[in-house]
Amino acid sequence: MLFWTADTVVAELARRGELWEPVPGLVACRGGVLALFRRIETRLADLARAEGFDEWQVAPGLELQTLARARYFESFPQWLTAAGHLGDDEATLDSIARSPDPAAAAGRAIGPAACALTPALCYHTYARLSGETVEAVRMTTQGTCWRHEGDRLRPLERGWAFTMREMVFVGAAADVRAFRQAGMALGLRLARSLGLSGDLQTATDPFFAPSAKGRALLQQVKGLKHELRLDVGGGRRVAAASFNDHERFFGTCFDIRQPHGEPAASGCIAFGLERWVLAFLVAHGPDPAAWPDVDAARPVLERTLT
Amino acid sequence: MLFWTADTVVAELARRGELWEPVPGLVACRGGVLALFRRIETRLADLARAEGFDEWQVAPGLELQTLARARYFESFPQWLTAAGHLGDDEATLDSIARSPDPAAAAGRAIGPAACALTPALCYHTYARLSGETVEAVRMTTQGTCWRHEGDRLRPLERGWAFTMREMVFVGAAADVRAFRQAGMALGLRLARSLGLSGDLQTATDPFFAPSAKGRALLQQVKGLKHELRLDVGGGRRVAAASFNDHERFFGTCFDIRQPHGEPAASGCIAFGLERWVLAFLVAHGPDPAAWPDVDAARPVLERTLT
Repeated sequence: MLFWTADTVVAELARRGELWEPVPGLVACRGGVLALFRRIETRLADLARAEGFDEWQVAPGLELQTLARARYFESFPQWLTAAGHLGDDEATLDSIARSPDPAAAAGRAIGPAACALTPALCYHTYARLSGETVEAVRMTTQGTCWRHEGDRLRPLERGWAFTMREMVFVGAAADVRAFRQAGMALGLRLARSLGLSGDLQTATDPFFAPSAKGRALLQQVKGLKHELRLDVGGGRRVAAASFNDHERFFGTCFDIRQPHGEPAASGCIAFGLERWVLAFLVAHGPDPAAWPDVDAARPVLERTLT
Repeated sequence: MLFWTADTVVAELARRGELWEPVPGLVACRGGVLALFRRIETRLADLARAEGFDEWQVAPGLELQTLARARYFESFPQWLTAAGHLGDDEATLDSIARSPDPAAAAGRAIGPAACALTPALCYHTYARLSGETVEAVRMTTQGTCWRHEGDRLRPLERGWAFTMREMVFVGAAADVRAFRQAGMALGLRLARSLGLSGDLQTATDPFFAPSAKGRALLQQVKGLKHELRLDVGGGRRVAAASFNDHERFFGTCFDIRQPHGEPAASGCIAFGLERWVLAFLVAHGPDPAAWPDVDAARPVLERTLT
């Protein structure tokens, strides 16, 4: 049994002033926990680079139409978070500026959503490659993802916003399968090298039941999604990485083709950084002096993915 | 006269597939321009660390009430960008999922703003220190800032979202003045070491005229804001860094006190990373082979700020 749990380690970091949430579900940090975050972040970036993936810096938002093209609104409407702004007319702005409760007045006056806040980084890849013919594209990026999670929020474990490192492969179906298999092995080795325990399980996305429940069943039957779950104490595990084979779904949605003219297949490997930080803190405690060297086990960086 | 201008360098990067905008005002990049972005980002982070500033990772959003406390809605309501999400009731989600135009349906159905997307990083500092007594706090962070700019958008030069590196000092008024003066010298030396030309000018924030015009006048008369403007070709310059003395404004708004009981003074130095990248590209062209070594002029990292 682990001494620390997700709850006790988060409470200890809050007590030390290293972790806080200015908005429910949005975490901020400094000190040891931030140093750990940076080390895990660097480790994953190095790993993606060593595997030959091309680093992109994606935008913080996407057109709502891009998500529609990916059939997002059938699949995960419950998560959608979007950005809007106030109108440009001076009368509205003036009434907000002079309101006795300007925060509430502004909140109500925000216009319709002008873009979606990125729910998963790989949508940027498909949007960018739309209409193109590709042999094999290896893209990687890190960024903030937003998913509305209702009242299920827990610091570091489940945020309204969180940090993702993703590796995306677009190309032949067989290569996607190989990429995903190698990714799972790599994820397990990374966990082991950090002294973390967990397991790899088949999984399904939380598709919106009325419109997309059938897709979850299909995903399960075909074994298209695996999750690496890490211990966070108290007998609980959280999915800290997922390994996804989309088959030709996004290639078809976004008209991305292989040289022979068929829609390209795609797959992605996604790491939720805050969850890796949490699992590490639960395993090794909040004191940096007791931590194993994150940078030590470099052999994991051997090129293994594709 | 520079050979490249902001327009021609952006067009060339777009042609090479290194720069694109999935949403107007939201930029994405890869390749040489991303490598340059990372080098400038690292340079600024190293600089802040060398000056003894404590690195924070701030949240991507703020409570609207925090901005109200900072009198933001009187000052800059025109910029406000906020995040909202769909409601949790299944009927609404189902109607969006089944809509012939789900993007439009979702855009209209987004609830009232649940948080503000950070317009400037230093608000996080004041919110965090609220109610505390501080001698001298030196905080630094990098993050995405959102400011609605209407139709004045230009890639890398003026985005709806952009990347800021900020150094914030909270403490005695005389120390804030010294911090700001040293920051200006440092900004100029950084520009020179990158081979960039520009000038330092007194400036004012674009306060919302009806409610806060008086503050701009006061700011100008007192010389509380300077901007470092860099050449972007075609005889134009853009403000790539600002150096701000807030006097006791935020200390009073957020009840941050000095040991003797008076409100603390504060100041901040903010760098707009995309604008530094743009000025560098205009000065040296889009070909990495022709770039001077960003990492060479390390003497600028001598501790000079405070």
